[in-house]
Amino acid sequence: MKIPPVKGTRDFYPHEMAVRNWLIEGWKKVSVRNGFEEYDGPIFEYLQMYQIKSGDEISEQLFRLTDRGGRELAIRPEITPTLARMVNQQINALPRPIKWFSTPRLCRAERPQKGRLREFFQWNIDIIGIDDVLADAEVIFCALDYLQEVGLTAKDIVVKISSRKMLAELLLSTGVAETELEALYAILDKHSKLSDEDFRDMLGEKIADADKCKKIIGLMTAKSIEQISGMAQLSEKAKEALDEVKRLFELLKVMRVGDFCEFDIAIVRGLAYYTGIVFEIYDKVGELRAIGGGGRYDNLLKQFGGPDIPATGFGIGDCVLGILLEEKGLLQRQLPKHRLDYFVAATDKQFFQKAVEITAMLRRKGLAVNFSYKAANLGKQLKQASDENARKCIIIGDEFIKNNELIVKDMAGGSQELIKADKFFT
Amino acid sequence: MKIPPVKGTRDFYPHEMAVRNWLIEGWKKVSVRNGFEEYDGPIFEYLQMYQIKSGDEISEQLFRLTDRGGRELAIRPEITPTLARMVNQQINALPRPIKWFSTPRLCRAERPQKGRLREFFQWNIDIIGIDDVLADAEVIFCALDYLQEVGLTAKDIVVKISSRKMLAELLLSTGVAETELEALYAILDKHSKLSDEDFRDMLGEKIADADKCKKIIGLMTAKSIEQISGMAQLSEKAKEALDEVKRLFELLKVMRVGDFCEFDIAIVRGLAYYTGIVFEIYDKVGELRAIGGGGRYDNLLKQFGGPDIPATGFGIGDCVLGILLEEKGLLQRQLPKHRLDYFVAATDKQFFQKAVEITAMLRRKGLAVNFSYKAANLGKQLKQASDENARKCIIIGDEFIKNNELIVKDMAGGSQELIKADKFFT
Repeated sequence: MKIPPVKGTRDFYPHEMAVRNWLIEGWKKVSVRNGFEEYDGPIFEYLQMYQIKSGDEISEQLFRLTDRGGRELAIRPEITPTLARMVNQQINALPRPIKWFSTPRLCRAERPQKGRLREFFQWNIDIIGIDDVLADAEVIFCALDYLQEVGLTAKDIVVKISSRKMLAELLLSTGVAETELEALYAILDKHSKLSDEDFRDMLGEKIADADKCKKIIGLMTAKSIEQISGMAQLSEKAKEALDEVKRLFELLKVMRVGDFCEFDIAIVRGLAYYTGIVFEIYDKVGELRAIGGGGRYDNLLKQFGGPDIPATGFGIGDCVLGILLEEKGLLQRQLPKHRLDYFVAATDKQFFQKAVEITAMLRRKGLAVNFSYKAANLGKQLKQASDENARKCIIIGDEFIKNNELIVKDMAGGSQELIKADKFFT
Repeated sequence: MKIPPVKGTRDFYPHEMAVRNWLIEGWKKVSVRNGFEEYDGPIFEYLQMYQIKSGDEISEQLFRLTDRGGRELAIRPEITPTLARMVNQQINALPRPIKWFSTPRLCRAERPQKGRLREFFQWNIDIIGIDDVLADAEVIFCALDYLQEVGLTAKDIVVKISSRKMLAELLLSTGVAETELEALYAILDKHSKLSDEDFRDMLGEKIADADKCKKIIGLMTAKSIEQISGMAQLSEKAKEALDEVKRLFELLKVMRVGDFCEFDIAIVRGLAYYTGIVFEIYDKVGELRAIGGGGRYDNLLKQFGGPDIPATGFGIGDCVLGILLEEKGLLQRQLPKHRLDYFVAATDKQFFQKAVEITAMLRRKGLAVNFSYKAANLGKQLKQASDENARKCIIIGDEFIKNNELIVKDMAGGSQELIKADKFFT
């Protein structure tokens, strides 16, 4: 009876687990120093939660289940709907701004590819209650604080930034109707992944008017904020949105992460709920999928039955990030080494019980200690001590009978000293 | 559109998250110092995995799902089958003994009750490759190392220990057939939860022969190892199993946790796969469900298509443990306090951008720092600094313009000093 693991999932053997722990502990450390508090929700929610506002792509990728009462549930494909639900439930008790983070396990029934699995971990940072673009800047800074912390520089990664509010105004000015925007975002989001021709075809299927299409394609070629500022007939709202983008870039400069950031009108984001600043983080070589992304979603809490409160945040998954850090040689050497304080060896079977006793006592004192299950010869035990990366080895031998002493061997230097056994037994 | 959370799941707001983190980090710390390495598997596996050997109770409580390829999956209700699968996959590459731990999120479709939820976290410790009862002792020691670490004493908790191997031999000697054992364990496991009458009825339904029933009920009243040792006509195998139990208690004494442990023939365990020593940990008052339990499962790896390798381990959930620690007053006061190193305040709007800059720079240096989104008056900002538990507050005011100096206020003592701004800007 041999059962394989499910395709697209991972087994975390101790080495892979050490990598995952290092990544996630880094996320936690940086979140806390940026003033965020940790939260989490259940692994599943009512199916409906993901059918309201996440957009079609995510709804199609749900792992659905039915509980014994016949209720339709789904394993979470993202944590933002849970965040919206939780914040809404306690909205009057929570001091604002709400600065929360989480590192949830998420599942999406996608076709597994490089950097994309059916089960992954995602760092989420959110600021709720602040409509100022400063919150968007802080969120981007926080991502970059972590990415710099693990050794990535502006030569390795880039944050591409745009604004849905601005894009919406520009699209409306081409004659697109407000109701067409959501479907259009889904197509524009694919812009960088498609050839010019495929993009034109896809757009043409949605927007029948060839002139409109041409204008939209023209828009997507805008290279800078200045170029857009120079466009004729910008609406007041478009100007407002542009000013916001400008102020965001100024703030990122003040925060000294300006080098990492660039404007890119083609950044739209796949999720349906974004309303303002949107961004994605990429490797500079451009070989990998997005490392992460996020943006402002000012209407989501309201759509989940809560008050009208602005919000902004991001998500960074562990898969692409892990690949990039590995490729840059930044992963293996930063992993903390598993170390024992002591390994306890016995030169003879008669001392075995004493080895067990010392081991137990030292562990109770908070030290990391191991011993050998086999009363093997001393050489083998010393090898095990070395394999398990012990700092020191306590050897129980004849000195214990004669003088109540134990040998303590320094595993790195090789030096030995005799220490009274009482020190270890009290 | 307001969607509630799913019944039997928990939302972890920052306070609840701090509790969960404290529990799980404690499990991790104690596991590592006892020489265990961390692993984890996917949140779901093929449904079949849980239908082979876990027993009927768990199979009925599965959250089942079907992926897009029509494959039947289930969210993991326990991690031991995953452990067996993972170890079998790499059996030739893994040095033995394999000492692994995990702290998985698990789901069971049970009726939620006190200490029992549909989603919970469980600390798992396993030693694979050692048939000696010393491994069982180490596993029990490790649980008690943690439980003592968080402040529980032999006055608060008890480890009740028995042996399925011994029980099997004693049952066989009453005339029960080998094939009846598994079903019988499920009934005997309920012994302590049922009245004598209900237990007799339940047993009678399974074992028709009244004389056999009487003998089995007699067995379950045995109070000590000595009483069983004194029984007439013990088989050689029964004597062997008894000797193992005796040696286990001796080892637990050597490890100085003997005070926590007692023999209890009624400990059987619900899961089908146990083969030797079994144990459960209870609060001494006896008001709560078991805090945890475990035992030896020597056949499981083989049943999962691997080699014949012995194994022993335990699981401790977070729900009952959390309730017990709360009741004993051991929880709240041990939670680590969320602290900021600095809060950065500005006395005037003109300094706001400088506040943002200092905050960003100090965070990049690894310090936990926050600032106020509102350029409110200084009093309000100092209150926020105090609410967020900051050690020090940096105040940017007129001294910055005049002398390029910042006020650094010690939040506990209230003392202030002037420090050159360069210190914070480089």
